Amino acid sequence: MERKTVPKQTLGRLPMYLNFLRTQPQGENDCISAPVIARELGIGEVQVRKDLHYASGDGRPRVGYQTAQLIAQLEELLGAKHPQKAVLVGTGKLGKALLNYDGFLTFGVDIAAGFNDRPIANAGQKPIYPLDRFASYCKENDIRIGIITVPGDAAQSICDRMVEVGITAIWSFSPVKVPDGVFLLQENLALSLARVKTFAR
Amino acid sequence: MERKTVPKQTLGRLPMYLNFLRTQPQGENDCISAPVIARELGIGEVQVRKDLHYASGDGRPRVGYQTAQLIAQLEELLGAKHPQKAVLVGTGKLGKALLNYDGFLTFGVDIAAGFNDRPIANAGQKPIYPLDRFASYCKENDIRIGIITVPGDAAQSICDRMVEVGITAIWSFSPVKVPDGVFLLQENLALSLARVKTFAR
Repeated sequence: MERKTVPKQTLGRLPMYLNFLRTQPQGENDCISAPVIARELGIGEVQVRKDLHYASGDGRPRVGYQTAQLIAQLEELLGAKHPQKAVLVGTGKLGKALLNYDGFLTFGVDIAAGFNDRPIANAGQKPIYPLDRFASYCKENDIRIGIITVPGDAAQSICDRMVEVGITAIWSFSPVKVPDGVFLLQENLALSLARVKTFAR
Repeated sequence: MERKTVPKQTLGRLPMYLNFLRTQPQGENDCISAPVIARELGIGEVQVRKDLHYASGDGRPRVGYQTAQLIAQLEELLGAKHPQKAVLVGTGKLGKALLNYDGFLTFGVDIAAGFNDRPIANAGQKPIYPLDRFASYCKENDIRIGIITVPGDAAQSICDRMVEVGITAIWSFSPVKVPDGVFLLQENLALSLARVKTFAR
């Protein structure tokens, strides 16, 4: 199964399946069906079958997918066993929380280093380097994934530097713009909490 | 314009409009049209007109909405000028980052206090209380919004305690389940980064 053949939209959903499946029983005889997955994740059954086809072929009629096997196949497809290195710029509280969180590894991303404009200590395991080492570090380590956790007014210039050194996928907690060909996931925690508020009674 | 008449789905989108409009020029003569808003936010123009109708009535033909006025109307509708108090449980790095972030206030949410099972210092302005004061604090302050940033295995019991004291809208960074009638926004940062990874080339 060649990774290149999986549509990007499907690839983007696979971590969600993996995340859910890991909460399910994984014994030798434990199976899970497309309708159950669809219901739990709130997406259409046809979509589930199509997406999982890329990882696992088709489920067996009236049985579905063997859970442990499907997990292994998704991990393989997502490269969870061969983590890809990412860098993070901006090591305030949020940046440090992300840098030291080990849950990313199980999805195949290793935040290998943090960068900060001032020298800063890290109680965790990961190194934090001064920003003037950013370009050389990224080139030496062939970094393609960047995380931006600097304050808003500094974010765009960090983003530009990331694009310059060849980073092609960016996760930013402050608003930035990226050129065509670079993927951006814009996180906005304030917006999320504002949304929660509108549902409070 | 009575708040009760706004559909929940619309209310959930209003912070996104507000967030975008705040990045736009807001002089006396600065206007913005529904098609521009729709294009920038990637949602349909009809939807934008419907949503904004609740805040502002209809835009003027060929002119649109006066930006500053629309911002004020959205803030009014969202209660941004009368912040609602929220509590946060779990004051590790991520919890502290959220507790001390002041960007939530501009959307009308004030994270008034943090709670932790062990006594813990906070360098920021907000108090952190021991968890045994949680129920009384929430009742005294009529808290309806809760944020969960404890490790995964502790999350469900915290969630249950929140529901017990009358919290009706929960933002959780660990997987939890809530009963009917309680709104849950489940955040999963690992999933977001996994998605970013699938777009890296």
